[in-house]
Amino acid sequence: MRTQAAIIGAGPAGLLLSHLLHLQGIESVVLETRSREDIESTIRAGVLEQGTMDILNDTGVGERMRQLGALHHGIELAFGGRRHRIDLTELTGKAITVYPQHEVIKDLVAARLAAQGQILFEVSDTRIGGIDGDAPSVTFTHRGEQVRIDADFVIGCDGFHGVSRKALPEASRTEFQRTYPFGWFGILVESAPSSEELIYAQHERGFALISTRTPQVQRLYFQCDPADHVDNWSDDRIWAELHARVETSDGWRVNEGRIFQKGIIGMRSFVCTTMRHNRLFLAGDASHIVPPTGAKGMNLAVSDVKFLAEGLDAFYRKGSSELLDGYAERALKRIWRAEYFSWWMTRMLHTFAEATPFEREMQRAELENVVGSRALAQALAENYVGAF
Amino acid sequence: MRTQAAIIGAGPAGLLLSHLLHLQGIESVVLETRSREDIESTIRAGVLEQGTMDILNDTGVGERMRQLGALHHGIELAFGGRRHRIDLTELTGKAITVYPQHEVIKDLVAARLAAQGQILFEVSDTRIGGIDGDAPSVTFTHRGEQVRIDADFVIGCDGFHGVSRKALPEASRTEFQRTYPFGWFGILVESAPSSEELIYAQHERGFALISTRTPQVQRLYFQCDPADHVDNWSDDRIWAELHARVETSDGWRVNEGRIFQKGIIGMRSFVCTTMRHNRLFLAGDASHIVPPTGAKGMNLAVSDVKFLAEGLDAFYRKGSSELLDGYAERALKRIWRAEYFSWWMTRMLHTFAEATPFEREMQRAELENVVGSRALAQALAENYVGAF
Repeated sequence: MRTQAAIIGAGPAGLLLSHLLHLQGIESVVLETRSREDIESTIRAGVLEQGTMDILNDTGVGERMRQLGALHHGIELAFGGRRHRIDLTELTGKAITVYPQHEVIKDLVAARLAAQGQILFEVSDTRIGGIDGDAPSVTFTHRGEQVRIDADFVIGCDGFHGVSRKALPEASRTEFQRTYPFGWFGILVESAPSSEELIYAQHERGFALISTRTPQVQRLYFQCDPADHVDNWSDDRIWAELHARVETSDGWRVNEGRIFQKGIIGMRSFVCTTMRHNRLFLAGDASHIVPPTGAKGMNLAVSDVKFLAEGLDAFYRKGSSELLDGYAERALKRIWRAEYFSWWMTRMLHTFAEATPFEREMQRAELENVVGSRALAQALAENYVGAF
Repeated sequence: MRTQAAIIGAGPAGLLLSHLLHLQGIESVVLETRSREDIESTIRAGVLEQGTMDILNDTGVGERMRQLGALHHGIELAFGGRRHRIDLTELTGKAITVYPQHEVIKDLVAARLAAQGQILFEVSDTRIGGIDGDAPSVTFTHRGEQVRIDADFVIGCDGFHGVSRKALPEASRTEFQRTYPFGWFGILVESAPSSEELIYAQHERGFALISTRTPQVQRLYFQCDPADHVDNWSDDRIWAELHARVETSDGWRVNEGRIFQKGIIGMRSFVCTTMRHNRLFLAGDASHIVPPTGAKGMNLAVSDVKFLAEGLDAFYRKGSSELLDGYAERALKRIWRAEYFSWWMTRMLHTFAEATPFEREMQRAELENVVGSRALAQALAENYVGAF
């Protein structure tokens, strides 16, 4: 089997890349270890920057997003018993859309399959070969058979735990990491939204995030011990904790409802600045992870593959490697900015057990400064909507 | 001896308070452990916010400042071999004046003495009494004699190591502190300015600050071990270190010259939120310390005593304690903001031995964000000039 771009991973990065390449007349095959049902139902991030919305709209896969997504013009920061609105649109002229990642995946899978794109699900034993020369390949097992794809390029979009990054020679790989001493306990709840906009709540008991998945389903999170177990948290205990963390003096409260999913996610900042080795490229979570506090994960995956698609377009149409050679530098500029913003939001909003009383006061002063200074609120808003 | 306000300490806080009270017709006595010569020649901070300039001008002690001070409309941040200008005036409409603290002290001493104000120098064994009631007093030794002043109010302006804060009952005192693992090595140099504006330089070898005292004298600083000794630093070693830290790719260099003073200062953030006990009040460094990176120390002393003078004015003219009762809350709002800004600047510009590679990247990304985002540059500028 032969293709121009072998893409490992059918997350937003891999699927969107395949879609963009198709529009440029470049052939690709996407490999995915999980089933279609699985990737189309796993709940992940849900905030799309303006630039992400633009790409989906401009390439013809934005229709359901426009119908089902919720356009948000602001977010709220809650602390000290009060809520403070950050008016994203007034501060930046832009907005965000809350539209779950698995819905984006559904849209992209549908578009690829409608265009006879090849997505191979439930592959296993994926191995990348030939990356020291100009003829890379990927071998894997699919429906019980061993398959080999020879490609011009291999693009690793297979996430933090995928094989692609590990295929880069370890000696030449540069990585930066921070693992946070907390996780997020996430629940899905059958109830009407508690708030029209997302609420990021800082409280001495820990961070909480109030968000909405659909008009009937809320997505709520609260900071927890990453080693905790969902079984330790009865519904009553969860509600008591959420009420304690986001109570505000105006009497506003979180809407309760039937909790139908519980889970704990870890929190990590990670950047592999080595995003390429000859004809193997990394994109999305394979190369970098942000804690979800800045809502940047999917958006970084989108900008990575936008840059890659432009590079491959120049390579095939003009025979120029310049954009491919500059890919990592271009992508990393945006990645580091998003890493910084995500780290900054995480630090400002979470409770760190080891923080001294002085550091806790600095955290509070930083929040006061953000809501009290138009300039700092604007800096937050610009990073949040991705307007730079 | 009897007065309305017994003021302990003839730094900017104590002297300015005495001056402001005099203009309101309130009598005061200022006590100082050091000699007039000593306080008029000890080199300290030198950046005056617009608000500080306004108070000195409005109360008739701004003439020498206008003549000798240097109005600055910007500062520079240097990192990664490049200098980036923050245009304070374009971003905030305001400016700062570089005018040494001991010159402000000279102006205030001269004004107080010209108005027959009482400043007692070289006092010792200062003790504060009667603070549990409404009749406080201060006893001390002056010219070999024991003196007692009975006062309506005692104002502690005697700095971090003074007696006033310690006179507050320890059980009711709330304090926050951070001691930094580095100090500043400061030198005075006979040479023309290296730069018209202050340069704050971040470098992996450590922070450096390029500033000017007069057209013939430079004031230069570089981050050092706070336990180091000036004897370990030959002139050659100092210059080599400064050149290494602030070299920029455009060929700009620090001007060398004869070094005629060397000293090391520690770095601390400190806030005592208990700023009052009955008729004893704290102001300036007696109540809070900022690391000098934000250039806020003297400016906070000035705003503290401005608030206190307004409170005492309302007390004597209208018999209202309301402003005095609200003094700490009003002052602390500004103090915490300045503490936050000073901590933020310190963290962004210094090298922390314990920082992980990821944290070093976050520091770099924060600097890139400040010089790359008008909103964040404006937030810095507003805090720097005190425009809020």
